[in-house]
Amino acid sequence: MINRIYLDNAATTSLDPEVLNEMMPYLTTYFGNPSSIYSYGRETRLAIENARKTVAKLLNAHPAEIFFTSGGTESSNTAITAAVRDLGCKHIISSKIEHHATLHTVEYLSKQGEALLSYVNLLPNGQIDMAHLEQLLAGSTEKCLVTLMHANNEIGNMLDIHAVGNLCKKYDAVFHSDTVQTVGHFPFDLRNTPVHFITGAGHKFHGPKGVGILYINEQIKIKPFINGGSQERNMRAGTENLYGIIGFAKALELATQHYESDSNYIGDLKFYMKEQLEKNIPGVTFNGDVLGKSLYAVLSASFPMTDKSEMLLFNLDINNICASGGSACTSGADIGSHVIHAIYGNTNTVTVRFSFSKHNTKAEIDTVIEKLKSIV
Amino acid sequence: MINRIYLDNAATTSLDPEVLNEMMPYLTTYFGNPSSIYSYGRETRLAIENARKTVAKLLNAHPAEIFFTSGGTESSNTAITAAVRDLGCKHIISSKIEHHATLHTVEYLSKQGEALLSYVNLLPNGQIDMAHLEQLLAGSTEKCLVTLMHANNEIGNMLDIHAVGNLCKKYDAVFHSDTVQTVGHFPFDLRNTPVHFITGAGHKFHGPKGVGILYINEQIKIKPFINGGSQERNMRAGTENLYGIIGFAKALELATQHYESDSNYIGDLKFYMKEQLEKNIPGVTFNGDVLGKSLYAVLSASFPMTDKSEMLLFNLDINNICASGGSACTSGADIGSHVIHAIYGNTNTVTVRFSFSKHNTKAEIDTVIEKLKSIV
Repeated sequence: MINRIYLDNAATTSLDPEVLNEMMPYLTTYFGNPSSIYSYGRETRLAIENARKTVAKLLNAHPAEIFFTSGGTESSNTAITAAVRDLGCKHIISSKIEHHATLHTVEYLSKQGEALLSYVNLLPNGQIDMAHLEQLLAGSTEKCLVTLMHANNEIGNMLDIHAVGNLCKKYDAVFHSDTVQTVGHFPFDLRNTPVHFITGAGHKFHGPKGVGILYINEQIKIKPFINGGSQERNMRAGTENLYGIIGFAKALELATQHYESDSNYIGDLKFYMKEQLEKNIPGVTFNGDVLGKSLYAVLSASFPMTDKSEMLLFNLDINNICASGGSACTSGADIGSHVIHAIYGNTNTVTVRFSFSKHNTKAEIDTVIEKLKSIV
Repeated sequence: MINRIYLDNAATTSLDPEVLNEMMPYLTTYFGNPSSIYSYGRETRLAIENARKTVAKLLNAHPAEIFFTSGGTESSNTAITAAVRDLGCKHIISSKIEHHATLHTVEYLSKQGEALLSYVNLLPNGQIDMAHLEQLLAGSTEKCLVTLMHANNEIGNMLDIHAVGNLCKKYDAVFHSDTVQTVGHFPFDLRNTPVHFITGAGHKFHGPKGVGILYINEQIKIKPFINGGSQERNMRAGTENLYGIIGFAKALELATQHYESDSNYIGDLKFYMKEQLEKNIPGVTFNGDVLGKSLYAVLSASFPMTDKSEMLLFNLDINNICASGGSACTSGADIGSHVIHAIYGNTNTVTVRFSFSKHNTKAEIDTVIEKLKSIV
């Protein structure tokens, strides 16, 4: 196999062999339908309920607040749609730099006439303008849903989830935070966090693809987004993705266990890459609140536009270096990043997101810097 | 491990080792995000597109008509909701013996006032009353969605999908068929079948859980049910369940390859079980169109209610025999089968669904019959 340098861990991560190991018995021996009443079904039901308890404990939530879904996108769709249809939020406050799972859902609901839609202003570094957020909340004549992501997947900016949650409390608003980039990357203490809905996706922290969670605060009662059988306590119909759920819990367990060392190690890599880029690439700039509240795993760099830099991602690819222009979810479309555009307008630069994992090394970064020097 | 007799293959099936084998490279080496533009993502994208081509070819559909989802339930939710919201069907015609993935969705839409809901009458054997269906279609002042399952998961009755499709054509109705019990069990020729939407779930034919398909006839244009990224050609957002998709295609390939021998073998088991029950259990009856249009893998038997038979499923379980009262999706709830009730009303019997796979044997059936003789 080609020796690749994978710096796109915000798009997806490799499945941890320990996680796969935990999934294997359910891919081979234990295949019973978790909803079946006989003992063979009860074994897999028990495994799912244990996974739920593990996840709840690690996030300091109640097991009854954790629902397994097919991924972060379904989780965000569920939360946002329910806030509007079941909780009476007829005014959505969001931002233009949300993930498309949020943006396209709020745009859909707004187009359908189900809710008003306001975008909170952004500060020059891409952080949310909290004064404007309060203004929007205070001025609303309708019950509000605030949906703001905990960390931006493209530029790494992190939200003060407590400050936003407290504002929402003050104005009796429902608060959903897309935490897909932070679950499995940071400790959570949900019993002491003023948020109604958060989301997670297993594949963002070395767990399996095709599985996610939705946390629903116990004070909130919503209807299912996907109707059918009584799985997930009538909240999410469909035969459970048994191995995915087992894998999600194991991956979160490992991530939490190794949080201190992993986050320090990965943060060092990010800092080192930033330093090396500044030293070696004239004119490079960094997007977002890079030295402030920012993911330790994401570094968004912009290179001056030249004939050479225009082909930057292509040339990185040829050299077996995986990095992305924006988020993977939109990279099929040949348009610029909506995040960079919302913060910086039309720029004459080429943006590359480098995102790191525990499997990356400084040696890899040195190689990338050398290649970049020759490319740009 | 305990030597179990698993006769609940309509609930879920074991994952075929050959299928798992096909999935393994994507659970280990190839983890790139299929939406990433670099070659590492393109490898997994290619694998998904090849899976789509395989599935399309096996069902004689166009690859652009096959969409991967998280399962049969999501697929049916998508089709039914889109028919009402995007295709203007303000009248839904369904039946009371549909799976809850259909029933709860049409009930939800009807309660929301988004569509009228009519149930087609059932014949004494649980088959659809086609004359009544035509009456409902002819009498409707609104554009209709007809949603009727291809095969009933509890009693095995099969629908004449061509006859219903042709009626729908005549009255310009949209036709969705829940084919979760038949995809992977029967050959499909979708180019020559008058249906707009069908659904499938991998785990019903020795494929993985957590993955399904939705077939959308190319003449139909709908909006996504789950909003977000541009995956599945903008039709189903969320990072793809890569291994699930690979597994689905492989399982369908194997099912199609071995259709002749498997269906004969399994059909013989069903017939043998029926014969042995009749011989050995006084008063046993069979539900649905058991000798007519019926799944070769499902046998629904009713036993006269006695002190002993009341505990039948429990006693089968103690003897390591897995069978179910109704569908797994509702077995958590302590209520009778909505299917049996809709056809037969309140009966003084105990219903057990036996459902078979290629892994079952006549020897197993003999053992079950012996146990049943001592239990009942």
